[in-house]
Amino acid sequence: MPADLTADAGTRDDTGGRPVVPSTGRLRPLGLREVRITGGFWGHRQSVNAAATLEHNLSWERRVGWIDNFAAVVEGRVSHDRRGREFSDSDVYKLIEGMAWEVARTGDAFAAASIDELSKVIERAQEPDGYLNTAFGHAGQGSRYSDLEWGHELYCYGHLIQAGVALLRAGVDSPLVDVVLRAADHVCAAFGPSGNQGVCGHPVVEMALVELYRVTGERRYLDQAALFVDRRGHGTLADVEFGRAYFQDHVPVRSADAFHGHAVRALYLASGAVDVAVETGDDELLAAIERQWAATVARRTYITGGMGARHMDEAFGDDFVLPPDRAYSETCAAVASVQLSWRLLLATGDARYADLAERTLYNVIATSPADDGRSFFYVNTLHRRRIGGLPAVDRQHPRAESGVRAPWFDVSCCPNNLARTFASLAAYLVTADEDGLQVHQFADASVSTRLAGGRPAGFEMSTGYPSDGAVVLRVTETSAAPWTLSVRVPAWAGDGAVLVEPSGARRPVRPGVASVTAAFAVGDEVRLELPMEPRWVRADPRIDALRGTVAAEQGPLVLCAESADLPAGRHVDAVRVDVDAPLVADGDGAVVASGALATPGDRDWPYTPDAGAATATTPARIRLVPYHSWASRGPSTMRVWLPVVTDQL
Amino acid sequence: MPADLTADAGTRDDTGGRPVVPSTGRLRPLGLREVRITGGFWGHRQSVNAAATLEHNLSWERRVGWIDNFAAVVEGRVSHDRRGREFSDSDVYKLIEGMAWEVARTGDAFAAASIDELSKVIERAQEPDGYLNTAFGHAGQGSRYSDLEWGHELYCYGHLIQAGVALLRAGVDSPLVDVVLRAADHVCAAFGPSGNQGVCGHPVVEMALVELYRVTGERRYLDQAALFVDRRGHGTLADVEFGRAYFQDHVPVRSADAFHGHAVRALYLASGAVDVAVETGDDELLAAIERQWAATVARRTYITGGMGARHMDEAFGDDFVLPPDRAYSETCAAVASVQLSWRLLLATGDARYADLAERTLYNVIATSPADDGRSFFYVNTLHRRRIGGLPAVDRQHPRAESGVRAPWFDVSCCPNNLARTFASLAAYLVTADEDGLQVHQFADASVSTRLAGGRPAGFEMSTGYPSDGAVVLRVTETSAAPWTLSVRVPAWAGDGAVLVEPSGARRPVRPGVASVTAAFAVGDEVRLELPMEPRWVRADPRIDALRGTVAAEQGPLVLCAESADLPAGRHVDAVRVDVDAPLVADGDGAVVASGALATPGDRDWPYTPDAGAATATTPARIRLVPYHSWASRGPSTMRVWLPVVTDQL
Repeated sequence: MPADLTADAGTRDDTGGRPVVPSTGRLRPLGLREVRITGGFWGHRQSVNAAATLEHNLSWERRVGWIDNFAAVVEGRVSHDRRGREFSDSDVYKLIEGMAWEVARTGDAFAAASIDELSKVIERAQEPDGYLNTAFGHAGQGSRYSDLEWGHELYCYGHLIQAGVALLRAGVDSPLVDVVLRAADHVCAAFGPSGNQGVCGHPVVEMALVELYRVTGERRYLDQAALFVDRRGHGTLADVEFGRAYFQDHVPVRSADAFHGHAVRALYLASGAVDVAVETGDDELLAAIERQWAATVARRTYITGGMGARHMDEAFGDDFVLPPDRAYSETCAAVASVQLSWRLLLATGDARYADLAERTLYNVIATSPADDGRSFFYVNTLHRRRIGGLPAVDRQHPRAESGVRAPWFDVSCCPNNLARTFASLAAYLVTADEDGLQVHQFADASVSTRLAGGRPAGFEMSTGYPSDGAVVLRVTETSAAPWTLSVRVPAWAGDGAVLVEPSGARRPVRPGVASVTAAFAVGDEVRLELPMEPRWVRADPRIDALRGTVAAEQGPLVLCAESADLPAGRHVDAVRVDVDAPLVADGDGAVVASGALATPGDRDWPYTPDAGAATATTPARIRLVPYHSWASRGPSTMRVWLPVVTDQL
Repeated sequence: MPADLTADAGTRDDTGGRPVVPSTGRLRPLGLREVRITGGFWGHRQSVNAAATLEHNLSWERRVGWIDNFAAVVEGRVSHDRRGREFSDSDVYKLIEGMAWEVARTGDAFAAASIDELSKVIERAQEPDGYLNTAFGHAGQGSRYSDLEWGHELYCYGHLIQAGVALLRAGVDSPLVDVVLRAADHVCAAFGPSGNQGVCGHPVVEMALVELYRVTGERRYLDQAALFVDRRGHGTLADVEFGRAYFQDHVPVRSADAFHGHAVRALYLASGAVDVAVETGDDELLAAIERQWAATVARRTYITGGMGARHMDEAFGDDFVLPPDRAYSETCAAVASVQLSWRLLLATGDARYADLAERTLYNVIATSPADDGRSFFYVNTLHRRRIGGLPAVDRQHPRAESGVRAPWFDVSCCPNNLARTFASLAAYLVTADEDGLQVHQFADASVSTRLAGGRPAGFEMSTGYPSDGAVVLRVTETSAAPWTLSVRVPAWAGDGAVLVEPSGARRPVRPGVASVTAAFAVGDEVRLELPMEPRWVRADPRIDALRGTVAAEQGPLVLCAESADLPAGRHVDAVRVDVDAPLVADGDGAVVASGALATPGDRDWPYTPDAGAATATTPARIRLVPYHSWASRGPSTMRVWLPVVTDQL
């Protein structure tokens, strides 16, 4: 791999901050001062995140007592007053991380003030030796590290460290940075080679420690992360009801054949493993994660990019067990998947990682929040059969599954994971290498950086994506020497994409990476035209739950049928579609399919030689809308996978 | 309803013992001295239960400490020494119930001695006021009834009372009977109209109390059961992660539209509600349960009769959500379903209840135990995609799901529920009414009872069922007056059944009940001939998970494909069947279908316009075996629902 592509010296990142800064790899990430989203699909969501979600989350964390827990430690009343689950500290840290990226992005005053206030509360709760957790270690509580399986202490450090890294890279002065360094040193002391030989039931500290190494240069953090990765998978944790695969402790990380167990845990661990591999030159470990990623994407991933098919343990299921109506597809697993794909993209440059990230961003991460940024899906099902209750705007929800977005959850990682993702999203769009710049995701954005040798390079990206398939890159900064401007051609585009060079020459481009190398002039335009005709897709026949059905896609968007678009009283389970008739875009973002509404006859027993034969159907036009927009017109029934019209079944 | 059909006076039941003895209803149950299973499919299972399972269960309950818990209470060490889950007492009681029926059935000495020994241990642990539980109420434990949601104290009383009722009816002298009466009186005092207004998170005490009323004539037990039924469904219990529907506390019992929540809880509660309805003349409540049963059977039940589609909360799912690969179909839910169907059959005489019981007996209850009676399926999936581990013959299993039967579980209700079901199974075959006798289930059996007016009536039932479709009823006792001998014609028989009268006259009979009324002579034969050609069945098209598939049945048996019958290295997910070709019985209990083995092409991403097109197939004969026998030749992959051969998908 090329040596040291990073500009991450010392504790301040003059790129404006990047979540992931590998010291080696195929591509160099750009920071929030180098790439700015200026509007459009994602610009709108960033604005809502800044204007609503950050405040919403902070207000709920106050209301449910998660912030007071820190004061309760200081005041010696925590064993009595503590509220929230054992990992609630981590959600305060995730929110701080999101606020740090928002300060980097816009200088947001509310975020800056909130960081300041929260940091002071947290700082006082840290023990002299660096230990910091409100659920363990104080009078009346379980002792430190007495429950590595479920206690989440190292998980909380992980998110604390990630918040600290964001503060450092964003250049936010905060006492929390010293808290983070003390906590990280405590972790190294307590869990180092001669310390506790355990690992945490919930990975994340691994990736956090590597990033802290990257930002500080302190090797011990990397070594500790590598230790945690290596220790796992040897029955290090106790067996639990869900089995050790639940927390990836059933097989060594480098030996697994795919991602197993709890999806968020698996994806955070894999991200940390990539980080360790990249920093230590462990190509075998990197290859193992690439192989596991490929197997998981081919066999254990929903069409939305969503991961996790099991409600019981929020886990990956067996290969090809992907029921749409019991999809778990947790929002946080999507966040984790994008983090992993990004790391693999930086390490390898392979466009398939950006393909999955795009799919996940548009179809899970964009789906979770309501348009006002104040309620969220925790679970992103692909099929809702019953009308859910009305949205509860002022109640914490005990459960993750519902047909309506909820303002807060007992386990409320998703709102904070979204907040930090939206605030830092610009850092996931474009990279640099020694030859030029690479566009991985399409959005209205401005890009300005320096290539090797200090050569300026920049462009404006303009697009109506995902509604429109034209992406225009207009060079705004350049130098005399030629450089290469590359764009990802999404896999979904098939043979339909065209690249228009600055000369006006049009050439068909295949999925992967399309490039123009030129001595660009300011004003030169490179234009990617993507085919936006809606299309039917079918599923691998081994996914039993999808047999006899099709789904519609348009551009990067998965579409769905929703009861709001059916005649009154009809529901989506009546929909049958004719795959031989064309899908027609109707001009307002929706697509219309030809098909029928079926009325299966009721029967006393559902399994008979003639079951299914008694289904009456009436022809109908079926309106399909972007999946990410579902349930935004009130509670509804919804399905992505639509049965095809047949005589039988 | 006809008045008082029962013969249950005082505490001794001279029928030899019946699990359910309603004071009114369409049909009168017969006891273990009136109906004896003499061999065949169920006779074998009864023998294995007596020879192996009772001892196996007792030995495991000793080994895992559940029996010592009672001694630990007496010796003041229970808060330190107690082992097992909070409801482990109940499994000792269930086993005693099973042993009591075995004593009634055969006079088994081991069972009698074990009851004696266990009763003495339990008796000493009861508090002076009747309270009896090893998990609560002692120094160092939670206080009595401090956790009605999860504490299971009333649930434990329910099984204790059922054991007591079995001892009374079986005529087994035991100090446990007085323990039971004291406990029941304690429940009435503690939870009566002026007591604790709560209910138990796990129903069963309702049906137990009604049966204790039936056996003792003490009205307060019935009143208490009715109170428990009426209290539930008003948010009486706290909200929990799974929602109040989990323990049927979301809507009053008589208002529900189907069975909801945890399947065993729902079915025990419904059984108790039927018992209350029958004894109090509450026809509205009975009609509500009938309606819920019908909706559940039409929309929420597996082809095996299995109930419960969700692993997370062992619960019914939404209508038509019945994934075969994530079927829960807990063995105990099948036991509970048979108990409920039996109550509804006795109340109404409707053959559909016996139809479901038959399906459940042959395809869930017969599936769970291994042939040696020493390992069990807790979960009865309809599709196993991976080879499981080798059977662990000497280890308690932490988890319910596996592709192999296990000897014991952390939650080990299934082995004991099977034990009490097999021991008492003869009581579920035949009933009487004022006109004669009714055969509901087919087995080699001898029947001898008295009809109204003391007229003797009896017959021998001989059959090779379920391998053979001929059931011969040969009259062995009769009187001069005519009486009616009825047999259920299973719904699965369609128009294929024939009844042969004693005269030799043959007449086609339709599903439901077929009767012969005659002044029978000893030696007269009534013969039912059922069509045993294997058949394909399809599923209601609203069961999305089964689209494009078929299942094979033969007689009452559901068949399955198993990897043991495929070429080496091939698995059941390759199977495709041709529904236009005949199914052929191969003479050794298996059936052969025409079809193919498919080899889907691997792909990087499973959702594309041409997914499924790349599947290569080779013609094959597909051997199908009874589902209840699966995994008895070693770990295997297995599926009940088989994709049909098509060009696409």
